[in-house]
Amino acid sequence: MSKTMENIREYLVLMKEKELKEALAEVPLPELIEQWDSLSEEEEVKIFTGLTIEQKVDLITSLALSKQEALITSLTGEHLKILLAEMDPDDLTDFIQSVSPEVREAVWNALGEEAKRETQFLLKFDEDDAAGLMTPRYLALRSSLTVAQALTWVRKSAASIETIYYIYILDQLQRLIGVVSLRDILAAENEELIENIMVKNVTSVFDDTDREEAAVILETYDFLALPVVDHYNRLLGIITFDDIIDVIREEQTEDIYKMGAMGGSTDPYLESSVFALVKKRIPWLIILLMAATITTNVIAHYQAVLQAAVVLAFFIPIVTGTGGNSGTQSATLMIRGLATGEIHFRDLRRILIKEILVGTTIGLTLGLLTIGRSMFFPPYISLDQAMAVGLAMTFVVIIATLVGTIAPVIIDRLGKDPAVMAGPLIATIIDVSGLTIYFETAKFLLKIN
Amino acid sequence: MSKTMENIREYLVLMKEKELKEALAEVPLPELIEQWDSLSEEEEVKIFTGLTIEQKVDLITSLALSKQEALITSLTGEHLKILLAEMDPDDLTDFIQSVSPEVREAVWNALGEEAKRETQFLLKFDEDDAAGLMTPRYLALRSSLTVAQALTWVRKSAASIETIYYIYILDQLQRLIGVVSLRDILAAENEELIENIMVKNVTSVFDDTDREEAAVILETYDFLALPVVDHYNRLLGIITFDDIIDVIREEQTEDIYKMGAMGGSTDPYLESSVFALVKKRIPWLIILLMAATITTNVIAHYQAVLQAAVVLAFFIPIVTGTGGNSGTQSATLMIRGLATGEIHFRDLRRILIKEILVGTTIGLTLGLLTIGRSMFFPPYISLDQAMAVGLAMTFVVIIATLVGTIAPVIIDRLGKDPAVMAGPLIATIIDVSGLTIYFETAKFLLKIN
Repeated sequence: MSKTMENIREYLVLMKEKELKEALAEVPLPELIEQWDSLSEEEEVKIFTGLTIEQKVDLITSLALSKQEALITSLTGEHLKILLAEMDPDDLTDFIQSVSPEVREAVWNALGEEAKRETQFLLKFDEDDAAGLMTPRYLALRSSLTVAQALTWVRKSAASIETIYYIYILDQLQRLIGVVSLRDILAAENEELIENIMVKNVTSVFDDTDREEAAVILETYDFLALPVVDHYNRLLGIITFDDIIDVIREEQTEDIYKMGAMGGSTDPYLESSVFALVKKRIPWLIILLMAATITTNVIAHYQAVLQAAVVLAFFIPIVTGTGGNSGTQSATLMIRGLATGEIHFRDLRRILIKEILVGTTIGLTLGLLTIGRSMFFPPYISLDQAMAVGLAMTFVVIIATLVGTIAPVIIDRLGKDPAVMAGPLIATIIDVSGLTIYFETAKFLLKIN
Repeated sequence: MSKTMENIREYLVLMKEKELKEALAEVPLPELIEQWDSLSEEEEVKIFTGLTIEQKVDLITSLALSKQEALITSLTGEHLKILLAEMDPDDLTDFIQSVSPEVREAVWNALGEEAKRETQFLLKFDEDDAAGLMTPRYLALRSSLTVAQALTWVRKSAASIETIYYIYILDQLQRLIGVVSLRDILAAENEELIENIMVKNVTSVFDDTDREEAAVILETYDFLALPVVDHYNRLLGIITFDDIIDVIREEQTEDIYKMGAMGGSTDPYLESSVFALVKKRIPWLIILLMAATITTNVIAHYQAVLQAAVVLAFFIPIVTGTGGNSGTQSATLMIRGLATGEIHFRDLRRILIKEILVGTTIGLTLGLLTIGRSMFFPPYISLDQAMAVGLAMTFVVIIATLVGTIAPVIIDRLGKDPAVMAGPLIATIIDVSGLTIYFETAKFLLKIN
């Protein structure tokens, strides 16, 4: 913990209000956020009260939902109004959508007329669409203005509009016909007409464009903001880069959860109820358990082989485990490549050649290692047995690599999400084929009938 | 493929240069990038030549390295100079660091004097540090200027400087003493002094701050850019939001690779050699294989039990698999929570209580399911045997959940990366304890000595 944060706690205890305010002005916000859930509720309210209005807004939009609610509830009517007036309409809409009904009413009543109108407008759109990210506060001009006139207008609006660095040009029907950056306006001569310096081929997204697609577009062009239009090309709002960063982070959490065999919400862990966590986790465990029934029957099929050489049972976890690990590696590379747009179905042949080479190299290495290991470490087994395990391992790794490569690419081609579908499918195919190869190799090498 | 992209291919074949140029002006860049690796080298060069200079810069900085090199090599001296002059110094430095020596020389010779100086300056810093992301092109002013004077200066610089939306205030020793946004300048009166409207408590990072930390700071404050200072607080450069988005994406790939049991580079898959892929994947497979030796010995230890009831071998993959899956779920939630800063060591008690409840609920459900499954689906086993498997499953899930929860939090507390360390450790502990519980439960319920 930093010196400033320690001081803040001291001032809180000693009730030194003036020193507290001074220390709070100095504390870096990321640190305050990190320490926030180690504070008592009383401390939270005291610290929050001591912050500047900008700090309050930055803090509250960065905290988890339950913490936001607690702080909002602690504010008196007038202070709540001031805080809400400072919040961006898109943040405000997200907030209103997620709080409890009681808090929602208090917040709604404290909103100004314009904020109410903006929020009602934004609430019409789907959270997962581009429009769910937009703010209706942007600068729009007619193309017939001069640079000097535009600049005067920008200066008048600068205090009230958050994003003034792109100015959108609309026609009489509110259709988006151009965009000009503040930089281009500043670089141009005063008498120049906006229509001569504006970019006419505006990159925009529709209100129902997927928000991830909007993220990719903003990223590719390094835009500060992206206009959202309806299907008549009428400007509805703009998405700013900071909301895109939030989308990227959230999608990241979702992808990582999917890889960890979990679906559902990306709510913060500490905020989630036991029921919500069970609901998020149990479906995949049940699916994987049911799929493993097939594996169980494969082993049951080789009951006689096992009875003849019970030592073969020792290596079941190594065979399925190594198969699973190498299959997961290939699948991870494919799923990530598909998600970032690097890998396409058309590359499958090229990828397969690569993976066959990689799989064979790894398979042979691990097979030899397994044989070596079996000679020098317990449980000591015969060379024949070791050869059976090692050879099986080589095949299993090659098969696992290929399954892990092909399955996600095919699933993606069929229009399904490979991150969700690939897991149980790959696991089952690898376990079944891996154990079959293992027992067949053993039967052959150990001459069991 | 879109209509525009189809037209482009047609114009390429028919060698209609004018139509090609017009179509290229219309094609959305993200689509061009997506289609890029389906083009032949000849097509690539022809299309590239037909792009506007802005499109060229956007395209080349978005493509994979080998593609960049091919395009650069295709350019004649004069065209190369024009392209390089348009590139941001930070992108240029990254590019120079990664191309082959021959291309590097050609690029270097085509650079202007200022670009050479900037690149040499930037090359001094570590790629993984904040300074590795910065551009030395920013606007800096003295605090004694008026708003009108500042605005005149901004307008003069607007054409040549990329990021003019934040203006940094330096003292005589080049130390960073304030920052003012262009928005605040535009909103202020002409006669106002900059020192009265600038923010004095500037949020900055040091040149050797970790770049992930810089990303978190920019994200928390929703800044467009973040100043980088040396340890004397002298301004070295600024990091813009688009470079932070790249960092977030790259870290995301790294995290996902780690979860897929892979280390090393995050180079694009299609760009990586077979050798690089083997190197990235084999170390973890070997570590996991060695760890699985312990599991092998656990089963060997229960050889007599297996011989008495070979049916127990059928369920080994279900026990280790379900244990592994539920452990992975807990570990994924912890690793992600630790990475985003939501979870801290101090929360461990609270988390454990939650996970015990979640683990018990899931364990009991899966245990009952296993017993039910064993009664109605092959391989048919006795009720005693089914009870042994089901009860073991319940315990295994609870243990796995706890290990998956505790291990990452402890590893993180010890200052190690839980995403890297947790995998083999958790897998081994779960397999060993899971199989021990399984065989002991079976011994007890089936009365085997």
